[in-house]
Amino acid sequence: MNQKPLFKKIDEILHGGDYNPEQWLDRPDILKEDIRLMKQAGVNVVTLGVFSWSVYEPSEGEFHFDWLESIMDNLYQNGIFIILATPSGARPAWLDEKYPEAMRVSSAGVRNHHGVRHNHCMSSPKYREKVGIMIQKLAGKFGKHPGLLLWHISNELGGECYCDLCKSRFQEFLRKKYKDNIDGLNQEWWTTFWSHRFNRFDQIEPPYSNGEGSIHGLNLDWKRFNTWNMTDYMRFEIELLRKLTPDVPVTTNFMRLYKTLDYSVMAKELDLISWDVYPEWENDYEAAVKTANGVSFDHSIMRSFKRDRPFILMESVPSLVNWHPYNKLKRPGTHKLSCVQAVACGSDMVGYFQWRKGRGSYEQFHGAVMDHLGRSDTRVFKEVEEAGNLLKKLQPVAGSIVKPQAAMIFDWNNWWAIEDMAGLSKDKKYGETCRTLYGLFIKNGIEMDVISSDADFGDYKVLVAPMLYLLKPGVADRLKEFTAKGGILIATYLTGYVNENTLCWLGGFPGDGLLELFGLYTEEIDTLYPKDTNTVSFQTEFLHGDYRAFDYCEIIKPQTARVLGEYTRDFYSGTPAVTVNAYGKGYAYYVGTRIGEDGMEALFKKIWEQAGIEAVSLPEGIEYHSRFGNGGSFEFYLNFSDKVQRLTEVKPGKNLITGETVAEVLILEPFDVAVIHSKL
Amino acid sequence: MNQKPLFKKIDEILHGGDYNPEQWLDRPDILKEDIRLMKQAGVNVVTLGVFSWSVYEPSEGEFHFDWLESIMDNLYQNGIFIILATPSGARPAWLDEKYPEAMRVSSAGVRNHHGVRHNHCMSSPKYREKVGIMIQKLAGKFGKHPGLLLWHISNELGGECYCDLCKSRFQEFLRKKYKDNIDGLNQEWWTTFWSHRFNRFDQIEPPYSNGEGSIHGLNLDWKRFNTWNMTDYMRFEIELLRKLTPDVPVTTNFMRLYKTLDYSVMAKELDLISWDVYPEWENDYEAAVKTANGVSFDHSIMRSFKRDRPFILMESVPSLVNWHPYNKLKRPGTHKLSCVQAVACGSDMVGYFQWRKGRGSYEQFHGAVMDHLGRSDTRVFKEVEEAGNLLKKLQPVAGSIVKPQAAMIFDWNNWWAIEDMAGLSKDKKYGETCRTLYGLFIKNGIEMDVISSDADFGDYKVLVAPMLYLLKPGVADRLKEFTAKGGILIATYLTGYVNENTLCWLGGFPGDGLLELFGLYTEEIDTLYPKDTNTVSFQTEFLHGDYRAFDYCEIIKPQTARVLGEYTRDFYSGTPAVTVNAYGKGYAYYVGTRIGEDGMEALFKKIWEQAGIEAVSLPEGIEYHSRFGNGGSFEFYLNFSDKVQRLTEVKPGKNLITGETVAEVLILEPFDVAVIHSKL
Amino acid sequence: MNQKPLFKKIDEILHGGDYNPEQWLDRPDILKEDIRLMKQAGVNVVTLGVFSWSVYEPSEGEFHFDWLESIMDNLYQNGIFIILATPSGARPAWLDEKYPEAMRVSSAGVRNHHGVRHNHCMSSPKYREKVGIMIQKLAGKFGKHPGLLLWHISNELGGECYCDLCKSRFQEFLRKKYKDNIDGLNQEWWTTFWSHRFNRFDQIEPPYSNGEGSIHGLNLDWKRFNTWNMTDYMRFEIELLRKLTPDVPVTTNFMRLYKTLDYSVMAKELDLISWDVYPEWENDYEAAVKTANGVSFDHSIMRSFKRDRPFILMESVPSLVNWHPYNKLKRPGTHKLSCVQAVACGSDMVGYFQWRKGRGSYEQFHGAVMDHLGRSDTRVFKEVEEAGNLLKKLQPVAGSIVKPQAAMIFDWNNWWAIEDMAGLSKDKKYGETCRTLYGLFIKNGIEMDVISSDADFGDYKVLVAPMLYLLKPGVADRLKEFTAKGGILIATYLTGYVNENTLCWLGGFPGDGLLELFGLYTEEIDTLYPKDTNTVSFQTEFLHGDYRAFDYCEIIKPQTARVLGEYTRDFYSGTPAVTVNAYGKGYAYYVGTRIGEDGMEALFKKIWEQAGIEAVSLPEGIEYHSRFGNGGSFEFYLNFSDKVQRLTEVKPGKNLITGETVAEVLILEPFDVAVIHSKL
Repeated sequence: MNQKPLFKKIDEILHGGDYNPEQWLDRPDILKEDIRLMKQAGVNVVTLGVFSWSVYEPSEGEFHFDWLESIMDNLYQNGIFIILATPSGARPAWLDEKYPEAMRVSSAGVRNHHGVRHNHCMSSPKYREKVGIMIQKLAGKFGKHPGLLLWHISNELGGECYCDLCKSRFQEFLRKKYKDNIDGLNQEWWTTFWSHRFNRFDQIEPPYSNGEGSIHGLNLDWKRFNTWNMTDYMRFEIELLRKLTPDVPVTTNFMRLYKTLDYSVMAKELDLISWDVYPEWENDYEAAVKTANGVSFDHSIMRSFKRDRPFILMESVPSLVNWHPYNKLKRPGTHKLSCVQAVACGSDMVGYFQWRKGRGSYEQFHGAVMDHLGRSDTRVFKEVEEAGNLLKKLQPVAGSIVKPQAAMIFDWNNWWAIEDMAGLSKDKKYGETCRTLYGLFIKNGIEMDVISSDADFGDYKVLVAPMLYLLKPGVADRLKEFTAKGGILIATYLTGYVNENTLCWLGGFPGDGLLELFGLYTEEIDTLYPKDTNTVSFQTEFLHGDYRAFDYCEIIKPQTARVLGEYTRDFYSGTPAVTVNAYGKGYAYYVGTRIGEDGMEALFKKIWEQAGIEAVSLPEGIEYHSRFGNGGSFEFYLNFSDKVQRLTEVKPGKNLITGETVAEVLILEPFDVAVIHSKL
Repeated sequence: MNQKPLFKKIDEILHGGDYNPEQWLDRPDILKEDIRLMKQAGVNVVTLGVFSWSVYEPSEGEFHFDWLESIMDNLYQNGIFIILATPSGARPAWLDEKYPEAMRVSSAGVRNHHGVRHNHCMSSPKYREKVGIMIQKLAGKFGKHPGLLLWHISNELGGECYCDLCKSRFQEFLRKKYKDNIDGLNQEWWTTFWSHRFNRFDQIEPPYSNGEGSIHGLNLDWKRFNTWNMTDYMRFEIELLRKLTPDVPVTTNFMRLYKTLDYSVMAKELDLISWDVYPEWENDYEAAVKTANGVSFDHSIMRSFKRDRPFILMESVPSLVNWHPYNKLKRPGTHKLSCVQAVACGSDMVGYFQWRKGRGSYEQFHGAVMDHLGRSDTRVFKEVEEAGNLLKKLQPVAGSIVKPQAAMIFDWNNWWAIEDMAGLSKDKKYGETCRTLYGLFIKNGIEMDVISSDADFGDYKVLVAPMLYLLKPGVADRLKEFTAKGGILIATYLTGYVNENTLCWLGGFPGDGLLELFGLYTEEIDTLYPKDTNTVSFQTEFLHGDYRAFDYCEIIKPQTARVLGEYTRDFYSGTPAVTVNAYGKGYAYYVGTRIGEDGMEALFKKIWEQAGIEAVSLPEGIEYHSRFGNGGSFEFYLNFSDKVQRLTEVKPGKNLITGETVAEVLILEPFDVAVIHSKL
Repeated sequence: MNQKPLFKKIDEILHGGDYNPEQWLDRPDILKEDIRLMKQAGVNVVTLGVFSWSVYEPSEGEFHFDWLESIMDNLYQNGIFIILATPSGARPAWLDEKYPEAMRVSSAGVRNHHGVRHNHCMSSPKYREKVGIMIQKLAGKFGKHPGLLLWHISNELGGECYCDLCKSRFQEFLRKKYKDNIDGLNQEWWTTFWSHRFNRFDQIEPPYSNGEGSIHGLNLDWKRFNTWNMTDYMRFEIELLRKLTPDVPVTTNFMRLYKTLDYSVMAKELDLISWDVYPEWENDYEAAVKTANGVSFDHSIMRSFKRDRPFILMESVPSLVNWHPYNKLKRPGTHKLSCVQAVACGSDMVGYFQWRKGRGSYEQFHGAVMDHLGRSDTRVFKEVEEAGNLLKKLQPVAGSIVKPQAAMIFDWNNWWAIEDMAGLSKDKKYGETCRTLYGLFIKNGIEMDVISSDADFGDYKVLVAPMLYLLKPGVADRLKEFTAKGGILIATYLTGYVNENTLCWLGGFPGDGLLELFGLYTEEIDTLYPKDTNTVSFQTEFLHGDYRAFDYCEIIKPQTARVLGEYTRDFYSGTPAVTVNAYGKGYAYYVGTRIGEDGMEALFKKIWEQAGIEAVSLPEGIEYHSRFGNGGSFEFYLNFSDKVQRLTEVKPGKNLITGETVAEVLILEPFDVAVIHSKL
């Protein structure tokens, strides 16, 4: 196992966060104190310049970088590296005043005023021009700074714009996609229905809120266009940076399950993946370990964009955010757990937003390392300090990677299509379903990648494809190939209903040739009311048991498939609910209904057995991960419960945190973690 | 009893639905298969051309009708008649592009973009011009086609427009209504309040969402204008068609309780009534027979627009729709029941939207006879086939009519006025209340017409007028006349509060002379909170019992009325809640509070007795209807329960479905129907 | 105690209400009947002209006042005084048509159409010009009318406008406030965050809904501007009236907890305070006495604007309104109680909206003295008549004042800042919390003023400052001074977080020097989920008991403060929840968490004891108030329960209502009142 550090300059787990010294330039005492306390807290990296445009360039063409130079020098001299942002995430007032085209137009066709967050038109030439100048200045001045580790493109890129410029680009996007053939577009969008045929590409408009909203193909292409346009913009920044500073890698900070942008497309442009993690820790609706499993799902999505290297956790908070419905404090220990969990899932950094709370404006009460109080004897500071010490001990982990035997398909195009689908019930719960099924794997200690349907299925033993409603070209064939070569595929209700442009497959679902793979077709899909339930009864040697079914029940006509479970109620009682079909060297499972967690877990256990994947026996409340490298593995055990836990069957090795050697048994205190470096 | 068929060309119950072959012109195999399967399914009529404009006229002035000619010929040669739509329900893109005035303006004053459904400005001369050209082409080419049965104007006409053209027409509408007398308008709208007086008619604006919304008279006249304008538009299409094809009748498809348009006005322009029926069958909030009774209410409204002839059910779905909150499958048997129910209520057709599911766009998952699957061995196809066979057996029913002895007043003007009323509580539940009271009649086998307050009250024995808040001119006198001649009138709380323009009657409610009819006046109306209840106690020889009262309690001062029930709680305990007043040869009942269903049913039973209306003893779960013709009657029994039901007191005759002769006793299997042709 | 009547012309409790005879000019019979019935009902004042502009001036420059003259003469001759409104609350249609600038622009930047309520741009010169002309006419014609008692400015002034004129005035407002120093503004608004720095004042825009919404300082200054601009407008009317009729006092009618305007600023311009009272009497969610206590809180806010004189209740309703979610009738007796309660709280008037229900438009079903029915033998009329008689008996009370020993700070700036704060949870419940804590005082018979943080704290023994998040300049010092001089101050969680422009205080909350006063600092604030709770345990000689804590728990670091209660759960179990700090001659209490009512009541009881404030022992259901004057006090006992209540420890004196002398014991029938004039 070749373990390669993310950065040449530093081979450690990074610890730090957003630092906005430009807010405190009139307080040199505070700036000085910051350095002292960063060192105390084990900070080895900070992110600068995220919102600095109006300080860099207070009026058009007037630039001020000296303050930054002094800050960067000082940081570097104190052993702290710099992630430098391009400041395009927030435009100065003078820019919007002079070039209103830089501001976004809403889906109602109304241009925003200055001041809304995420308010740039990504198509605007003037905005790009001004960003370009800024990047040239920044890269020119700081590109060779010894402390510069990484470029941070803009900030949490997001949103959509409906201006005329974006409309034109959308039309060009469509013209290219449909090869200048408007009839092809009309066919794929099925526009003859409701007399919606278009005569020319330049007749097509974005889906304005008071315009065309009923053509699924248009809606989907609009979302693709938006990702394309955002990626195009991002590429503009990246290409300029690569030209100016070829040796400095580039990232941008992603967000949690952000529906507006297909990150799987954007990820390709980046040198490494980073993201911002703000879960509702300590909520009142689920156990702590459930929340943790959900975060693990999010980390896995991010990690799976680049399976050969670690990602980085760019932003998180040591205490509380200010925008949850209820902004509860992180309980003692949770911060440590959340830091180590990120590393366990493949991150080589724990970053914070932000180092010091600003005195005013929208995020003045967003948690930070340093509070308005200004003291370092606070609980929060001490927990950050503890995390810093702990992350130092995890230095050997840096650069190691996660290698799951199982993967789940989570696909933005599919998500968009399902959400826009008119039918079934309003909330189809695609994301929630994927997260839940992922949770059953992680609960049993089985690491899982979460990948797009375009991604390589090559090495996995088990592939779970929940609700794979939309089949992009080639996906059906690749699923067949995966199975034929010995893989185990698990699909569910709603598989293979539409093609990439949401045209229904004719001749039976799952379409595009998947009937053969699963050995069945579905005749109807029943949507249950919330009060309705059915039961799936498994009564074969494969599995015995009755489990709750709800939300959706497909009526299945098996051809070659073997029936594993049947419905026990309603007019389709006794018909198949769950089947398996042998295909080549592998097996294709079909789960025709939404089944309760206990039922899915029972089913998965049988499948893991069949696949030769070893589940890890974990007490309730424990999350387990492993990373590979340095001739062995790093075994992470996280106790998200308030009980002392006794783990057996632990791989022997050295606990990096305590320094002790662990044989088979590991005792974990409440909310404690262990990271065992096993050389086996 | 003279039984006259609806159409000269065919004397059967029609069975068929919307057929959109223009979506499949590149698939002659499918078009051919369609004909074969239609015949198999007993289809004798299809509706063509509803959304065909962009295929008829892909660009301005370029027309293509050959494909339709070939389809129509083929259908006719296979024994299938055609309902031909005017395609004005959906405009092609080029039309909106060139003539934006054809697109609607929202209540916020913003013109829509192309693509919104229901997006025509009914006032637009250009839209009318283009529709006129299209109608001349269609009628010229197909007006004499032997298969053409009926014109289908546009599609589900609906909506409102706030453009300047509509504003001007609204002003003209007001000028005519108020005889060019602005003072008269000011008086009727009570504009002196809040200083809202108008100086001139051309100063008045529609009730924009950011404009005048507080003048009830204006709001009501705006709704009337909208119906008038829509009717004017519809008349434009109809007159043109009548000129071109005087022998072809005309309809348009109505929707369920569509609040925006007063169908009682529009109905007058049509040769026959048709409507689209999409109930939430198989829901989780009420028994199946309750849902059925509600549908029966809707059918009765439609039937009552033209009491001398059948109506037709234009659209329904054999499986599920795609726009309910939960789109559950129709259970086996429900389709048969829903088809026969329509006929039982007076329809001579069962139509579907649509024959074959399109591959894409908004309604791709709306149920249809033929699924994307493309097989005819599906449950849905077989149930449609069964329905087709069954409807053939009902041929003798075609042309017969329903003749209720009771009627309910359900009035759009009243509905609008109650909903716009500021007071009481937010949801006054007018429609729900009418539906519930109707359900008590149908539950007891008593057929009921549902009529506007303008309609003729002449022949009924019992007339129920729930919440008749607004009294149009002459209505009070006609109610008196109805009662004086021996009718029994049942009115409720909220009767006679305002005149046709929502001015309150002075001198006591119920106003306009109704104090004399009911022999009482109401002093106050108490609105109860949801947790509040009262009780009405009936303690006379007429009726004994205590029943729940809720929502509204009027405090009644009886003059000549006799008290039947009294409140038992609160400060008005012991005062009258329900009264009756002898008036001429009849009786006027007044129910001053909202009473639970059991109480209302008990009251109605006494009244039916008094009126000489015979209730039919029906087991729970059975719905009963009858149609008259062919020297006897057709007795419909629909078993909406999962139990075998034994009915006694059944009129003897031949069961058209089984061919068996029924004496007094009828056994009905779960979800089965019987239609007995009784010659008594 | 010097008791000075509010008006020179009449030394009685006023009784009357809005009278809109212009709606009935065509019905002289009704106008005549009005006078007769007013006298019967004990009406001695009416408000005229609130919505009369379109009758005064039906077209531009054409004036009609003769009708008013005749009405006023007739009223005066019948002993009824007149409150005359300026009619600026509703503009005639011709004005908006000719001068659209007079109509308001929404936060989306769209100008309203004519007709919306509260639809004036307060900045509009044309609107002011037209109002000015009208005032000159009115004052010229009626300023010396012997019946004229009071000017009533406009009506329920409210709302905001986002037009360009308002934008300019906002910029000027900011320029003055920040002394033309844009850097000062940038610093106070902390605009460096998110790169929000402004270059010039004329670059700043109002917080459009699609514009800048994230700068708390801007949001707050916008609200201040809006109050400033509204006050400026009001002052324009007032100054004109004072010039024309120096002897006639001026008021405007306020509304209940109206968040949009800081009444404490506006109140300064008025000669006396009046307000409109529309509680949800007889609701289904709380006991009647709780509703009453809440109304008492509202009265106290109004009274406290001018502590040296009575206020007046301008509008209320004898029966029901038409805009509550459920408009329930006032039960018998409630009207009498609500009238006397107003007087008990310091009002010298009970007014109604309105005398007679109009026949049409938005408020046709709003309760009134005279109904559409037109009879005076109704329950409502008789209760009004009873109230009239009763208020006559309270003549000795007129001019007396309320003199509480306790006060609560309720501050609009603080309210705005808390509501706009991003953090904690969405609904901070500032108003609700103040109302609840006030209720604990009134429940124990302790009268309380409710004052702005700018108001004088001088005379009170106890000052409660709930959630005093924002500290205006000087407030911290004045709180210290109040305490040092012997006052008892009670503050809570969220005290002293930000300065007047929402910049966080550095160095610890409560900021601006209050650490010294309370002897502690807070390290964190925990927001609890709705299902979470904690407990505060008091275990000192001061207080023993365990009470529920919820919503917010601050983690407190006491310095000199003594701990009274501690948390018993969660990671901060055992840390201080409630403390007290001796400061000078007084004490500063700090309540770090939201505690249930029983806990707060227990705490308050100890504090009252300490302060030497005597609680009155009241049975449940009784509200008590007192007014001082005429060498003694007026003791009000209001029985809001359906039980006969026996009160002991009553001050001896004459019951003004029954004429009987009361010694120590008072028996109150259900829903009855007593007003004892005690000369002790």
